[in-house]
Amino acid sequence: MWEVHSNALCHTDIYTLSGQDPEGLFPSILGHEAGTEVESVGEGVVGLQPGDKVIPCYTPQCGEPDCIFCFPPRGKRTNLCPKIRGTQGGGVMPDGTSRFTDAEGKEIKHFMGCSTFSEYTVVADISCAKVSDSAPLDVCSLLGCGVSTGLGAVWNTLNVEGGSSVAVFGLGAVGLAVIQGSQMRGAARIFAIDTNPKKFEIAKELGATDCVNPKDYDKPIQQVLVGMTKWGIDYTFDCTGNTEVMRAALESAHRGWGESCVIGVAAAGKEISTRPFQLVTGRKWTGTAFGGFKGRSEVPPLIDAYEAGRLKLDHYITHRFQGVEGGQWGCRWMPKEQD
Amino acid sequence: MWEVHSNALCHTDIYTLSGQDPEGLFPSILGHEAGTEVESVGEGVVGLQPGDKVIPCYTPQCGEPDCIFCFPPRGKRTNLCPKIRGTQGGGVMPDGTSRFTDAEGKEIKHFMGCSTFSEYTVVADISCAKVSDSAPLDVCSLLGCGVSTGLGAVWNTLNVEGGSSVAVFGLGAVGLAVIQGSQMRGAARIFAIDTNPKKFEIAKELGATDCVNPKDYDKPIQQVLVGMTKWGIDYTFDCTGNTEVMRAALESAHRGWGESCVIGVAAAGKEISTRPFQLVTGRKWTGTAFGGFKGRSEVPPLIDAYEAGRLKLDHYITHRFQGVEGGQWGCRWMPKEQD
Repeated sequence: MWEVHSNALCHTDIYTLSGQDPEGLFPSILGHEAGTEVESVGEGVVGLQPGDKVIPCYTPQCGEPDCIFCFPPRGKRTNLCPKIRGTQGGGVMPDGTSRFTDAEGKEIKHFMGCSTFSEYTVVADISCAKVSDSAPLDVCSLLGCGVSTGLGAVWNTLNVEGGSSVAVFGLGAVGLAVIQGSQMRGAARIFAIDTNPKKFEIAKELGATDCVNPKDYDKPIQQVLVGMTKWGIDYTFDCTGNTEVMRAALESAHRGWGESCVIGVAAAGKEISTRPFQLVTGRKWTGTAFGGFKGRSEVPPLIDAYEAGRLKLDHYITHRFQGVEGGQWGCRWMPKEQD
Repeated sequence: MWEVHSNALCHTDIYTLSGQDPEGLFPSILGHEAGTEVESVGEGVVGLQPGDKVIPCYTPQCGEPDCIFCFPPRGKRTNLCPKIRGTQGGGVMPDGTSRFTDAEGKEIKHFMGCSTFSEYTVVADISCAKVSDSAPLDVCSLLGCGVSTGLGAVWNTLNVEGGSSVAVFGLGAVGLAVIQGSQMRGAARIFAIDTNPKKFEIAKELGATDCVNPKDYDKPIQQVLVGMTKWGIDYTFDCTGNTEVMRAALESAHRGWGESCVIGVAAAGKEISTRPFQLVTGRKWTGTAFGGFKGRSEVPPLIDAYEAGRLKLDHYITHRFQGVEGGQWGCRWMPKEQD
């Protein structure tokens, strides 16, 4: 059992809460970005003990030699360990049971294998990224999804190299993390695109060189961006979940080698489209889940980097809310200018 | 001026002839897969002289240091030199003129920078792949488009490695070349998919391990293939030009790392679609033109490999037709069983 200290709020929680997520199960305990501490461990769990600090990860990492998604050679290309996919999607633990009930004893479902909007939760061992004893749990909550996803999309999925051009569509926490990750990789030009110009200030602070508001143009934004660059942009990222924006991101990518990464989660039933000519002329369309990070082995080094001062994360915390028990229960990020 | 010895027929010629190609210009001389011999060269042309054997390539390679598509580092990722893109698309030579007229002196347009359905043609120097003096010109005609495209999609674009699984949709010459290229790379399992089972024999001869006719199943073919493999196929290739098949190819790709390559040319206005979830769960969608081969530097070694016995190409020639002047004018490939 895990004691939850800090949470961050992801739009996916809001989306499921809205009832529009066709895979949403109710009643359930939402939340999947948290800093937690181990209260107790179940039988057979190794490598974790009470008092350990843990980031629950909705992408598990079984690490077993027979898991083609965890083990080399192919396992190096993905973080999508399917070990507990079925039960996690069904809102239960790997043994098929829920560990939550309401006051009348009625079952409450788990959510994304985390359910961290709770003072205590139960998480599968292979979903636990054990971090250092000195890790600040409020900052840890940032790495359970959004910030890791943005950084990893740049570092793992598209593997942006120095001198590249990058375009980021949507300047929420994920998009800002894409900017930060690109700046850290030495991208030469970073386009930040949003219909809300209030987000441009923080985007520039993080490394954006060109801020573009599609509302300022009559032409489709992909035509604007290609026009600004002649042949398009080396790496583009959708951080909106809007399928039309995903198309714009792909069509903004550079002729010959541009790559576009879908990060946002689209609404149910929505599809992406483009002319196949966009691909035949050298563009690549791909996506990422949790930024390609393997939770147990690759998330703890992010906190180490934060503690060593090599990775700045404090700017993602803009508001703090206290939980009912007096503990710091919710910390929430958003661009400073937006409410 | 180039004397054309041998031609192969590509479906793109037929498509443009049909009038459905919105970029088709008329009157024009079609044909873009040929074995030719230099009859004369224009002023300023270096490296080519009368008597040289040449494969005209519809993707030029200017090779100039200021061409980001030809020169490293980025130029290593693409073959799409844009040097004469505008004039080639406009049916004229780089200087803006056509070199063809009809009997009454009226202009006839060039096609794909090649126009090889003619006894003589004029081709830009940067579009000429000079091959060895001993190269057989009938076999050369195979490498001007279809066979090179299929081999290159495997070797260059998706870079299939030994032990992989491959699926090929559409068993025309391009699809057969994908099978051959995959077999040469050491693919462990090669799925050949076509609605015409008569094509399966040659597919098997070239290396296909599993032949699948979508008409034999009620389910969509992508579900059939994922069912046959548990998680999908490492590398998939559309060789049909049908956008629904392009979708099936993408959705047949392996969860976590599967890559799908669009090779076929879609009809005007057609778009490809899928759920973005397909990309977020690790698939990549891309395309190829001329298999990623740079014409002048990378096509001649293919003929060298043929002459050395390392690359088999004779099986693509199934019918021969003689031209009006008695020369061998047309050689045409197709699966042996189809007419």
